[in-house]
Amino acid sequence: MDEIITLSYGSGGIKTSRLIEDYMLPAFNSDVLNELSDGAILDVKGDIAFSTDSFVIDPYFFNGGDIGKLSVCGTVNDILMCGAVPKFLSLSFILEEGLKLEDLKTIINSIAETAKKANVKIVTGDTKVVDRGHGHGIYINTSGIGIKRPGVTLGKNRIKEGDKVIVTGSIGNHGVSILCSRENLLISDIKSDCAPLNSVVDCILKYKENIKILRDPTRGGVATTLNEFVEGEDFGIELEESSLPIDKNVQTACDLLGLDPLYSANEGKVLAIVDKSIAEKLITDLNNFKESEYSAIIGEVTSVTKGKVLIKSIYGGKRVLDKLSNDLLPRIC
Amino acid sequence: MDEIITLSYGSGGIKTSRLIEDYMLPAFNSDVLNELSDGAILDVKGDIAFSTDSFVIDPYFFNGGDIGKLSVCGTVNDILMCGAVPKFLSLSFILEEGLKLEDLKTIINSIAETAKKANVKIVTGDTKVVDRGHGHGIYINTSGIGIKRPGVTLGKNRIKEGDKVIVTGSIGNHGVSILCSRENLLISDIKSDCAPLNSVVDCILKYKENIKILRDPTRGGVATTLNEFVEGEDFGIELEESSLPIDKNVQTACDLLGLDPLYSANEGKVLAIVDKSIAEKLITDLNNFKESEYSAIIGEVTSVTKGKVLIKSIYGGKRVLDKLSNDLLPRIC
Repeated sequence: MDEIITLSYGSGGIKTSRLIEDYMLPAFNSDVLNELSDGAILDVKGDIAFSTDSFVIDPYFFNGGDIGKLSVCGTVNDILMCGAVPKFLSLSFILEEGLKLEDLKTIINSIAETAKKANVKIVTGDTKVVDRGHGHGIYINTSGIGIKRPGVTLGKNRIKEGDKVIVTGSIGNHGVSILCSRENLLISDIKSDCAPLNSVVDCILKYKENIKILRDPTRGGVATTLNEFVEGEDFGIELEESSLPIDKNVQTACDLLGLDPLYSANEGKVLAIVDKSIAEKLITDLNNFKESEYSAIIGEVTSVTKGKVLIKSIYGGKRVLDKLSNDLLPRIC
Repeated sequence: MDEIITLSYGSGGIKTSRLIEDYMLPAFNSDVLNELSDGAILDVKGDIAFSTDSFVIDPYFFNGGDIGKLSVCGTVNDILMCGAVPKFLSLSFILEEGLKLEDLKTIINSIAETAKKANVKIVTGDTKVVDRGHGHGIYINTSGIGIKRPGVTLGKNRIKEGDKVIVTGSIGNHGVSILCSRENLLISDIKSDCAPLNSVVDCILKYKENIKILRDPTRGGVATTLNEFVEGEDFGIELEESSLPIDKNVQTACDLLGLDPLYSANEGKVLAIVDKSIAEKLITDLNNFKESEYSAIIGEVTSVTKGKVLIKSIYGGKRVLDKLSNDLLPRIC
């Protein structure tokens, strides 16, 4: 076999078959995928959640993961945020001519490992190759199907005054880590928090109707995601700056780089709005797990401000947190 | 609004929202998409078909369509080939910094129009932007969900000796048309056959258990797809060169360019293996519709040769048709 990807690997002919048979099928160990038909036939009962994401992260290997791990986590987490249990993933590659097959192999193994951890099956796929100078090594699309959990309904319309805003751990790690990888800034060892959120969401959704909405604060960070919750609504959100869980080295990197962690992406945290009656108890539960040990109540829903997110600084002043307007960190996912 | 795509359109912030709200939502007119959550909740009963494809075609506007039309047809047709009725599509863009917003708008409208024709709803999506020199204007991934038709089971295991091979019209048009567009070869007006195949498949599947397998001969063309049918099986296929429906101008272009139409892609044709008892009748039915008026029986399943595709030339000689080995036409989808 060659050492790099050539255009022939995208031809649909012999080389495409060899890529699939030698690299993909052994890694993914999926009966449905092995059939190699144009699509997968799946047995599904009840309401489903359907989500898609393309991943163009630069660099594709980073501290704490790679584009393969990220592309599974991204779609799995989106489905979890819909209140569904992820079951099936599609996997589509856009490879650039010249990509090392060794790198592709590492990424495929990382996809397989993360899919196993997240309890999803890769059931259908596609591979395209673009000529040199028209890609960046590898882009990946995953789309996913999940089965809706019975008795769980989530949505903005369920949010009410007094609800608490919680986050399941430190803010901004993924974005800052990518920037450090990209620029070779060794400020300190900042790892991406990229992870599938299955067990964290299991823990949260035990509180069924007390959970109003879930979202993973990826592009645009916590500030942008919270704005999406309140946009056009007759309530707002007030955050307490002092309660934000931010890793010291993330804060240091942000200070040096002139960034705000509230606008930096996470890839392994849940932002949830929950009924105040269960908020403290939920935090205690979450803090028992390694992956959510720094969970915190970071603010509450208020009708004093409508359609806006405010933040109360440690000195008592308040300012508006808008959606992200200029992209300071392109291609972080 | 700007005239071109900048990196900020992929930030997940204000510009991403404007792109979605100003360009996409009005075009797609989909209640589920309008909710703008991380995924779509869909009501699905029974077995489903799930398929994915990324599209990197160069150029993205071509004679007979554009990347938008193609990206709907590609996934819709894959689901149809599974014996399912396409219902829902996801839509994910990888835009290159510098893409004209006007071009994006044209492509979005083409997606909307084709989705309407194919009777599918765009229900969830994603937009990423890559920096100049790391894309080629626009790449699109669509994934789709369809509902399996009751009483229809398709698969290689149903093929038997004596079955007929049919194709629903002229061979190779898409690939040759793209090559002509790309190289500015005005040999003659060769249009891509890119089209959703819903009504053609409806017509074929009226013959339920007499239909053994369906596939659309895209990358690798008719020759490669037929090889996928016979690979590792104890039967082969023998084609009659004289019965192949090939447009005269496609044949002329192929002769000039040194190509074989049997390895050139279609994007609007079905290759089917059917019971011999209904083959002639099915062709008569198909010829009644404009989109399949040149349907023909092009060969049959034989046990004389096993695992191979043979072609009998108009002079009586036979040769083996292998899978495509070298990609003569990269990035045609």
